[in-house]
Amino acid sequence: MILKTNGERLWNSLMEMAKIGPGELGGNRRLALTDADIEGRELFRKWAADAGCTFRLDTMGNLFACRSGKSPDAAPVIAGSHLDTQPSGGRFDGILGVLAALEVVRSLNDHNVITESPIEIVVWMNEEGARFPPAMMGSGVFAGIFEQSEIYTHQDPDGTTVESELRRTKQLGETFCEAFPIKAYYELHIEQGPILEAEGLRIGVVTGGQGAYWTHITLHGQGSHAGTTPMNYRRDPIMGAARIITELRKIIRKHPAAVGTVGRLETHPSSINTIPGRVFFTVDTRHPDEEILAQINQDLEILVQKICTEEQLESELTNIWKAPTINFNQDCVSKVRSAAESLGYSHQDIVSGAGHDACQLSHIAPTGMIFIPCENGLSHDEAENALPEDVTAGADVLLNAILASAAN
Amino acid sequence: MILKTNGERLWNSLMEMAKIGPGELGGNRRLALTDADIEGRELFRKWAADAGCTFRLDTMGNLFACRSGKSPDAAPVIAGSHLDTQPSGGRFDGILGVLAALEVVRSLNDHNVITESPIEIVVWMNEEGARFPPAMMGSGVFAGIFEQSEIYTHQDPDGTTVESELRRTKQLGETFCEAFPIKAYYELHIEQGPILEAEGLRIGVVTGGQGAYWTHITLHGQGSHAGTTPMNYRRDPIMGAARIITELRKIIRKHPAAVGTVGRLETHPSSINTIPGRVFFTVDTRHPDEEILAQINQDLEILVQKICTEEQLESELTNIWKAPTINFNQDCVSKVRSAAESLGYSHQDIVSGAGHDACQLSHIAPTGMIFIPCENGLSHDEAENALPEDVTAGADVLLNAILASAAN
Repeated sequence: MILKTNGERLWNSLMEMAKIGPGELGGNRRLALTDADIEGRELFRKWAADAGCTFRLDTMGNLFACRSGKSPDAAPVIAGSHLDTQPSGGRFDGILGVLAALEVVRSLNDHNVITESPIEIVVWMNEEGARFPPAMMGSGVFAGIFEQSEIYTHQDPDGTTVESELRRTKQLGETFCEAFPIKAYYELHIEQGPILEAEGLRIGVVTGGQGAYWTHITLHGQGSHAGTTPMNYRRDPIMGAARIITELRKIIRKHPAAVGTVGRLETHPSSINTIPGRVFFTVDTRHPDEEILAQINQDLEILVQKICTEEQLESELTNIWKAPTINFNQDCVSKVRSAAESLGYSHQDIVSGAGHDACQLSHIAPTGMIFIPCENGLSHDEAENALPEDVTAGADVLLNAILASAAN
Repeated sequence: MILKTNGERLWNSLMEMAKIGPGELGGNRRLALTDADIEGRELFRKWAADAGCTFRLDTMGNLFACRSGKSPDAAPVIAGSHLDTQPSGGRFDGILGVLAALEVVRSLNDHNVITESPIEIVVWMNEEGARFPPAMMGSGVFAGIFEQSEIYTHQDPDGTTVESELRRTKQLGETFCEAFPIKAYYELHIEQGPILEAEGLRIGVVTGGQGAYWTHITLHGQGSHAGTTPMNYRRDPIMGAARIITELRKIIRKHPAAVGTVGRLETHPSSINTIPGRVFFTVDTRHPDEEILAQINQDLEILVQKICTEEQLESELTNIWKAPTINFNQDCVSKVRSAAESLGYSHQDIVSGAGHDACQLSHIAPTGMIFIPCENGLSHDEAENALPEDVTAGADVLLNAILASAAN
């Protein structure tokens, strides 16, 4: 059985939700647990109630909207994402995953389909981490990766804690936030990258998430006067950094799926006529294969040592974060792929470069993800955009993957 | 006639002056026109008065201590430098030039030498520019490079103007600040670089000052997510900047006397997991030959264009300052060289990498400079240091160069 969603209804819901917490440039500003975020959640709650759902709110503010199945005690199939946004965020990042899951429920209602397993739509609390770090907070506590009591103490820049905002906004629910048996978890999301658009494809079958290493590198040389220090007397860390960055890209390019980024670089002192005594920069490397990622970072360490020896610099290299590679559940991935195939939507396997609630869920439940293209690969920006036909296609795939998992 | 100075007396005066406005690490903090600067000037005034000098204070606070010659109306030979320091400055930068000129007068008194031309010791106001920009302020107005009425309005970080501080500290003198006939101007200074120390030489015969270009470069690419943007979709300005900086050094190294420095580099936004959309950096290039310096900067422009084309970046390149090359007066330079030679001090010709009051004076008077080594080439730092025997040698050369110029 292949069902389809009502793409126009889904698009209208997305545009209606986008009116809440408007940004300045056509996007949204609904930081987690602000009044705008709550207003968005209330609108979702109204829509889900109209679609016949009952609700469960947990102690982290994760909201579950439940549609019964034939076996009410069976483990549910869950789909969702988040409604909170970046400070200058888009209309699709997260929202699509929630409202497409709502559209799945509405479509099942339209077709009078009662699934064997219950279906739940989830709104994870604070995926962005833009107001309260870290990102993927609600799903992270749910999956046992973060400790709720510790997370409750996290503060926004004004010193307000997560717990106090959960209480103020009445999002601290009665159900203790912890994992329970889940038949399958699916999340539809915009790609947030350029690949699907460039390849002219409608659906990305997400097989997993990249592993990431975040590294801080400081090079120490000898600060001195730009005019009075001949080149052959210099120990200039910016020259070392420039060579390392240039060579780093060559290391990255040896591995087709790898990415490497230097996002921050600072010179000390920062003065036009002073050779810096110290340069600090960051390196973010990612690869879907844990071993290759480790190899890249070993090559980076060797590179830093080699160039610092040649340039007579001292170096400090500190790994500040390692994210493991994520492999989604093979059965869920193949259900997503089969759905796209059956629906006749062009697709390819893809690895997620960003973190998602689904990455947290993958540790405690069979998990799959669906990507659709976004304009110019842009996200975390008010100009974030997606095509209505891609949105519909994504929701159709979500519907049929859920149906496949909830069938028995 | 070869005379020598009293090195011990000069050293003691340097150490006595260093007690005024002490820094935290053995250096000095006597920012221009602060109470500490005035206290230093008063101590100099007392010493110069004891040495029989009369005084002239001009409307920029430049202080001239005058020793008559046989021809009282002849153009004077002037020597000096400055007593103000950097916020964390050393005990020699500037101070040596003033107190060595005082030692010359004291030594002439010891030997009962009356020169043909008068000799004047000058204390230029605000050479450092650390409190009130620009640097070389007093000598710059004197030489007609800056306009006094405009300079009077310059403010320190607290909004206090140059004029109000000149008045408060009673340094706004009666003599209008303007150039007058000068027979020769000499300035003794620490090198502020590593060459003389590394070469094991006592005296640098300064032939001139480097020209300098200061350039601001901004590279524009496409900011995006470090995880979701494959390498072949990137337009990453930090990669362009790294390549430019690496190649810039190759351009500089083609010219043995050239130096090139990237002192500032900033990424926007500055975030570990974001490819910067924009990178800003500065380039300071210097060379003693105007044409070669222009060639280097033309090569830099071509390099930026080439790499930006290859990396699909846009660039803005703005020259924000050009300092002309300075050629000191050949007669003054050869008098310095002869003095070092006659005294038996090892020496070599050297080009000043930094700006000095002498660079301003060179536009309106025959000018020469003498460098002595400083420890590790370090300056503008409280650890700045010089050896007593080098200080004495420098003062001896100053004395004999002045004698040669003032003889008739």
